[in-house]
Amino acid sequence: MEADTALVRKLVDTLPEGVVVTGAAEIEKYREDFARDGSAGMPVAVVRAEDAGQVQEAVRWAAAHGVPVVPRGAGTGLSGGSSAVDGGITISLDRMRSIEIDPACQVAVVEPGALNADVKRAAAEHGLWYPPDPSSYEICSIGGNLATNAGGLCCVKYGVTTDYVLGMDVVLADGTLVRLGGKQIKDVAGLSLLKLFVGSEGTLGIITRAILRLIPAQRAGATLVASFPTMTAASRAVVAIRTRVRPSMLELMDNTTINAVEDWRSHGLDRSSGALLIAQSDATGASCGAEIELVRACCAAEGAADVFTTTDAEEADLFVSARRNAFLALEERGSVLFEDVGVPVPLLPDLVDGIAGIAGRCGVEIALVAHAGDGNTHPIVVYDAADPAAVEGARRAFDDVMQLAIALGGTITGEHGVGRAKKAALPDQLGADVMALNRRIKDALDPAGILNPGAVL
Amino acid sequence: MEADTALVRKLVDTLPEGVVVTGAAEIEKYREDFARDGSAGMPVAVVRAEDAGQVQEAVRWAAAHGVPVVPRGAGTGLSGGSSAVDGGITISLDRMRSIEIDPACQVAVVEPGALNADVKRAAAEHGLWYPPDPSSYEICSIGGNLATNAGGLCCVKYGVTTDYVLGMDVVLADGTLVRLGGKQIKDVAGLSLLKLFVGSEGTLGIITRAILRLIPAQRAGATLVASFPTMTAASRAVVAIRTRVRPSMLELMDNTTINAVEDWRSHGLDRSSGALLIAQSDATGASCGAEIELVRACCAAEGAADVFTTTDAEEADLFVSARRNAFLALEERGSVLFEDVGVPVPLLPDLVDGIAGIAGRCGVEIALVAHAGDGNTHPIVVYDAADPAAVEGARRAFDDVMQLAIALGGTITGEHGVGRAKKAALPDQLGADVMALNRRIKDALDPAGILNPGAVL
Ligand SMILES: Cc1cc2nc3c(=O)[nH]c(=O)nc-3n(C[C@H](O)[C@H](O)[C@H](O)COP(=O)(O)OP(=O)(O)OC[C@H]3O[C@@H](n4cnc5c(N)ncnc54)[C@H](O)[C@@H]3O)c2cc1C
Ligand SMILES: Cc1cc2nc3c(=O)[nH]c(=O)nc-3n(C[C@H](O)[C@H](O)[C@H](O)COP(=O)(O)OP(=O)(O)OC[C@H]3O[C@@H](n4cnc5c(N)ncnc54)[C@H](O)[C@@H]3O)c2cc1C
Repeated sequence: MEADTALVRKLVDTLPEGVVVTGAAEIEKYREDFARDGSAGMPVAVVRAEDAGQVQEAVRWAAAHGVPVVPRGAGTGLSGGSSAVDGGITISLDRMRSIEIDPACQVAVVEPGALNADVKRAAAEHGLWYPPDPSSYEICSIGGNLATNAGGLCCVKYGVTTDYVLGMDVVLADGTLVRLGGKQIKDVAGLSLLKLFVGSEGTLGIITRAILRLIPAQRAGATLVASFPTMTAASRAVVAIRTRVRPSMLELMDNTTINAVEDWRSHGLDRSSGALLIAQSDATGASCGAEIELVRACCAAEGAADVFTTTDAEEADLFVSARRNAFLALEERGSVLFEDVGVPVPLLPDLVDGIAGIAGRCGVEIALVAHAGDGNTHPIVVYDAADPAAVEGARRAFDDVMQLAIALGGTITGEHGVGRAKKAALPDQLGADVMALNRRIKDALDPAGILNPGAVL
Repeated sequence: MEADTALVRKLVDTLPEGVVVTGAAEIEKYREDFARDGSAGMPVAVVRAEDAGQVQEAVRWAAAHGVPVVPRGAGTGLSGGSSAVDGGITISLDRMRSIEIDPACQVAVVEPGALNADVKRAAAEHGLWYPPDPSSYEICSIGGNLATNAGGLCCVKYGVTTDYVLGMDVVLADGTLVRLGGKQIKDVAGLSLLKLFVGSEGTLGIITRAILRLIPAQRAGATLVASFPTMTAASRAVVAIRTRVRPSMLELMDNTTINAVEDWRSHGLDRSSGALLIAQSDATGASCGAEIELVRACCAAEGAADVFTTTDAEEADLFVSARRNAFLALEERGSVLFEDVGVPVPLLPDLVDGIAGIAGRCGVEIALVAHAGDGNTHPIVVYDAADPAAVEGARRAFDDVMQLAIALGGTITGEHGVGRAKKAALPDQLGADVMALNRRIKDALDPAGILNPGAVL
């Protein structure tokens, strides 16, 4: 049901002044995420909650009146997961940002709106580290990271968000707040509900607090940057590296991306390179050098044109930030569709070649960046939104890339989530029985379907 | 409903000869797990399935006739999770043991009955390692490990079972087989169902295949064994170590355990020691020595009486196997109740002291071994089952230890599972709302309640 004006008035009156935002200009800022995929509707209000109690109030109001609720972190999502819904409310967690480090327990207790980078900084003050590092870490929230099970650059060695969650407070569809887990490291009491909410993209509950595991800070000892004539050769090198070394970073950029990044801001990359591989080792002592040597050997065997290594952190950062800025740089070139497909690592060359084929067949440009060590790639379709043929080709390419990943036994999304942008392809990957199982869980936890309707399922 | 003879006949006829076991003597072997907690009933049959299809057949038969189904791995569980149910069937996975290593993908594809140790051995042939290592690894199955989210000795650095699961086939309560995940490392398509089944103790489905992540083999570089006058001092050392180092093993044994192990088979331990701490570092190069030095300093600061270090793997193994054999050795001393409580690491000394207090008040002996680095302890109540007062004291101590862990903000089970033995205390830890949430998931996936009834919930 859509909320009418009197109902919205009631919500405004329930919560402290300034919490419920109804002005059109203000609402606009909370309508879309970074995918800008056209799925966003017009919400009747945005609730900028200051604490979990206010989230509960808002959800209770929504539940009572059958109003859709979209949870929203920082809105950096790339699949329309926090797109606003017509007649619904968006609950933004962007004001709930407290971070408390417990160095004895080596955990961070954080509110969901805290930015990933702020958690990292707070941990670093105690010599600790929160590993998960999406490229967007300076601008995305922990709540969004949890809700999408975000990955990043260090995941090839250190795992993804779910591997670092010890506890979570979640507001359910009826406004109940449940507290799951705690500061204990191991806990198998009851079903693994904590892990179920991770990656649920706001469809099962709203995360209002998290207890995150921290580990001692690591130093990236050495960085290797290798230039290859082709992405195929580079991805073959990745396959070889992964069977022999466990680097702490293993990223790839193709020629289009290199040039987009250089156009955007010079990072000193070789514009003629067919593919750039960035590897890091944070192994200690002599092992670091040994790992980098193995990586170098794999690159050489696959025909790397140029290999450069450094132990200087600042120099290394230039390449890593070039990689991190790839999305933003590519957005400068036109309209974009962000992909996030993944395959078992040995099939990376097949995926890369298949994508090149799709680009050709659909007559579009597909830039490619990848968390290559995990077999997780981001083919980014760049197109001219003013040209109907290009729009059509881009959409076709977007779909074909997902079908290719499925055909290779992989996934349509390795870390960004299904959201609204990839919803149509989900049944193709999961099949009817697993879809039905997803639906049963969703119905059990949100029988009225008010939480993030239209996302994922 | 209980199955009558004609019904059982039907099941026998449906499946190949020898799969359905109905002889009393044979059934007896599948009735209890290692907890021998008295919860086991008398099943009408044991289905020793040879493949997933037979599991589906048996579950379909059970679903059609409302017969309870207890999934069973190797029966080494310590909380009565696979105790047979009166009138039900037990589906044993002990014949489904195939193991296939895919070295390129660095995964093992295994059937659930495969022993943990066999997976480790198969992986080792390719220079790979499956880390999760319950003390029972030579005798427990991967299916049981997944269903309990088993921990072990290396978890302090390498995490628990859930951290190594990439895919799973699960037979649901209606006999449908769902295939979750795959060989891709990252995958966020749909809800995190894979993780939900991990730790579900056979209450949501029967695992018939798993894809496990492997990592390159590590070597334990150095081992330190420190003797302390008291468990309190030793656990204080653990707290200090955990904030400064990330050892690959950090285990504790108290004086009772040391003597039980020595009585059972001499391992050369110092019988007068109040507590023995075993730490390992598998850091490479100079870091290994540096880590061990930090551990030594922490031990010294907390008054360790004697500290011994070795880089000899065989010598180290003597101590580690003493630790691994603790349960079996303690069982020789009388009847036992296995505990598995955990607290945030800094509260370990409080837990240890509290347990000593409980032992005194209840007039029972409580031996203590611990995966100390994770704050996960196994207080083992040893008592004389022939003495009613001792039985009563032991039961009281068992309950009080769980309540103590809850009071310290911890858990009643860190790795063994709730099963039947700890079911009564679960609501005290989780509270009514989280219990209700568990129940909703259970009802959604097993509405008739045929899967492992009486366990967990
Ligand atoms: C330049 C750039 C680089 C990126 N690189 C990466 C990368 O390397 N790895 C990666 O994984 N992602 C990456 N992303 C995608 C995005 O940053 C992540 O998905 C991030 O986790 C989203 O966080 P957010 O706070 O912006 O969430 P939002 O976009 O606001 O929301 C994302 C989803 O989570 C839900 N949600 C948000 N907060 C909550 C909450 N508190 N409770 C319940 N549900 C909630 C929303 O409903 C939505 O479904 C990148 C994005 C950009 C723009
Ligand atoms: C000497 C000793 C030391 C131990 N040390 C440890 C330790 O360090 N860490 C630790 O975590 N545990 C330890 N345990 C406990 C036990 O070994 C583990 O819980 C193990 O994971 C159980 O595996 P299993 O195959 O024996 O399972 P079982 O005992 O047969 O079953 C355990 C539970 O899993 C369910 N189950 C089994 N297989 C399946 C399946 N295929 N599908 C669905 N459900 C299934 C059962 O229904 C039951 O609820 C120890 C036990 C012993 C005897």
